[in-house]
Amino acid sequence: MSIASEDDILRLVERFFPSGHPALLLDRGDDCAVLRPGGPLAVTTDIFAEDSHFRRRYFTPFDIGFKSVAVNVSDVGASGAVPVGLSIGLTLTGHEDEAWLSGFCEGMKALCDRFSLALSGGDLARSSLLNICVTAWGELPEGLPRGLCRGVAREGDVVFLAGEVGLARLGLTLLEKTSLPKECAEVKEAWPRACAAHLRPVPLAEEGVALGRFALHHDAGGRIGLMDVSDGLARDLPRLLASRQSGLGADIALTDDILPEEVLRYASGAGISTADFAFEGGEDYALVGTCPEALWPELAGSLAGFGRRVSVLGRVRAGGITLNGRKPACAGFDHFSR
Amino acid sequence: MSIASEDDILRLVERFFPSGHPALLLDRGDDCAVLRPGGPLAVTTDIFAEDSHFRRRYFTPFDIGFKSVAVNVSDVGASGAVPVGLSIGLTLTGHEDEAWLSGFCEGMKALCDRFSLALSGGDLARSSLLNICVTAWGELPEGLPRGLCRGVAREGDVVFLAGEVGLARLGLTLLEKTSLPKECAEVKEAWPRACAAHLRPVPLAEEGVALGRFALHHDAGGRIGLMDVSDGLARDLPRLLASRQSGLGADIALTDDILPEEVLRYASGAGISTADFAFEGGEDYALVGTCPEALWPELAGSLAGFGRRVSVLGRVRAGGITLNGRKPACAGFDHFSR
Repeated sequence: MSIASEDDILRLVERFFPSGHPALLLDRGDDCAVLRPGGPLAVTTDIFAEDSHFRRRYFTPFDIGFKSVAVNVSDVGASGAVPVGLSIGLTLTGHEDEAWLSGFCEGMKALCDRFSLALSGGDLARSSLLNICVTAWGELPEGLPRGLCRGVAREGDVVFLAGEVGLARLGLTLLEKTSLPKECAEVKEAWPRACAAHLRPVPLAEEGVALGRFALHHDAGGRIGLMDVSDGLARDLPRLLASRQSGLGADIALTDDILPEEVLRYASGAGISTADFAFEGGEDYALVGTCPEALWPELAGSLAGFGRRVSVLGRVRAGGITLNGRKPACAGFDHFSR
Repeated sequence: MSIASEDDILRLVERFFPSGHPALLLDRGDDCAVLRPGGPLAVTTDIFAEDSHFRRRYFTPFDIGFKSVAVNVSDVGASGAVPVGLSIGLTLTGHEDEAWLSGFCEGMKALCDRFSLALSGGDLARSSLLNICVTAWGELPEGLPRGLCRGVAREGDVVFLAGEVGLARLGLTLLEKTSLPKECAEVKEAWPRACAAHLRPVPLAEEGVALGRFALHHDAGGRIGLMDVSDGLARDLPRLLASRQSGLGADIALTDDILPEEVLRYASGAGISTADFAFEGGEDYALVGTCPEALWPELAGSLAGFGRRVSVLGRVRAGGITLNGRKPACAGFDHFSR
């Protein structure tokens, strides 16, 4: 099968995503798809752009498809919503052949199958760089009409983490240094968890949904805050605490016992601060949250059994953020900072 | 105000799109926005990409913002759904200053205000070319759970058009020939409707909604077909008729009395076929539909009063498509055709 027209691409997508998903009243192929009405709908849009979010040099087409969906599903899960479907705006360069497109679709499909997601449609365009813009949605229970949000923390609340931080930054750091395919393969072999975290992050959507259910039954006051760590704790923690408006900070401890072994090994070899490295590292798609101290033991129980590390990072307090008892070294990532 | 960070851009967007839209249970600023549950939701995604869909040379920032939303609202309206909101994946080059971003937001806002749309959120990224990917949604009545679709035509049905075709192609043709700002201004002055059709198309969403309501009350059999003409009648008409599966075609008449004056003037001066030019022209965002002959008079009445031309283009028949009694010259536009 050669790719000579938009219709060829659509036929290829059809092979991987056959129509008939129960979440859709009308499938792809018309001006709009139609979503079955349900509870409140959590919606997010994330761009995954070549040379800004990924390099073709070390991302396989599968990785690109996988991660472009994963970063969106992460946001949906972090709202406490059950991920349901997505649409995709796919800007190609025109040089992608059938093998490339098949790999890309396989990667998307692997993530979609993991969470039973519908592909409701999208659009194709052509430009000089790849650009994948996904909009994903999920269903919230009627009793949780705003989902799990930021900005509900108070002094003394527990700051918790589901998943790990620092691994994706390590993967990025190491893969960026490679140029030949052989070097890239060596890095992937020596640092498998770091590379996987950067290339194919599996979002903690099940954990987010579990927290949503927990909030529905145990948190009448709406005091559980949650978000995913996409830009790094350094940038995301102030957002979770709504620091600018609330004046809240937190005392955070990123100690060796809760940091990934590969991050410890790398930082020790490079002679840098493990805690700062992990605190500033983005794209781990861990979940960071706040809750009243009294809720913590039971909340922690609701996060058990998913196979991810669950940690207490510290306590919310008035004033700034401290990391291991001192001021953090610097802020996180910004596409437009100068 | 200078643009030195993502937060600066978000603050600028906030100025144009204050929070508090009634369609949102949770506004921008969290991992997800939350949409108020309603009827079935029609969803569409369209990319608007630099040098593929627009040139900065003759599109103002306002035009870019306006059209990137308009092309999506057109799809929602063509489903018979009331447009409600959108999210945007905005890939900038990093060279856009406050004036540019303000113009862009003003253009988006002009279209959003026209249809009372919510901006639920989005994402920012950076690349070498502008790329705007919008996902828009609208609400369908419960009794029209798939909206207005393609592929419901039968032999003898009326093929109708709301709006005009050929103008946007003319605008594109003329603007592409300009290089200096002065030339561009002259073209805009000499061919105002053609340029406006290419730069700032106003979607026929009210007409689509009116047809949806009409279908709800008068079309128990689901026999009204509708779509917007984004790629030109040459490509879109076979899709409306589902020609490949149904084997249906149509006898179409694009006569001078239903074609725009500027298109007639240009084609006559250039010595080309007006009908072919208009038949192949994309991006007019007119609505093309099919309905049983018996429904047509009343359906036409439901389309009156919106200030757009409503025309009968012809009749559905078995076999191919004819244009003014002959085979059409060629097919429409494809981003990936070779």
